[in-house]
Amino acid sequence: MCEANAYLVREDGSEELVLKAVDKLTIEGDTVHLVDVFGRQERVRARVMTLALVDHKILLERMEKPQ
Amino acid sequence: MCEANAYLVREDGSEELVLKAVDKLTIEGDTVHLVDVFGRQERVRARVMTLALVDHKILLERMEKPQ
Repeated sequence: MCEANAYLVREDGSEELVLKAVDKLTIEGDTVHLVDVFGRQERVRARVMTLALVDHKILLERMEKPQ
Repeated sequence: MCEANAYLVREDGSEELVLKAVDKLTIEGDTVHLVDVFGRQERVRARVMTLALVDHKILLERMEKPQ
């Protein structure tokens, strides 16, 4: 299968798993909407840093909250 | 293999192939930097609309040029 795992990269560079086996990723303004192969969904206020498809890795960076 | 093909979605909804077999995608401001499994690179002024990993598809939307 060709899904990837999505991680939020913390300020210290460590990675926090958000959702495994992501099939679809949609960017909706400052929110990243992830759907895994089972239909489970996660929404995170983040921007996409990098996708490494052969490594099955999606790296997200949390958006600073404006207020 | 788990690479995907990247397309620019035109205003009429049709899709223009940018790069096949994309391994890495990095967002650098308003530019999407694509690298395929052979190391070939493309840079497009665009934003990521959707990734559909199981369908091997990356959809990009061209950024309007400000000037």
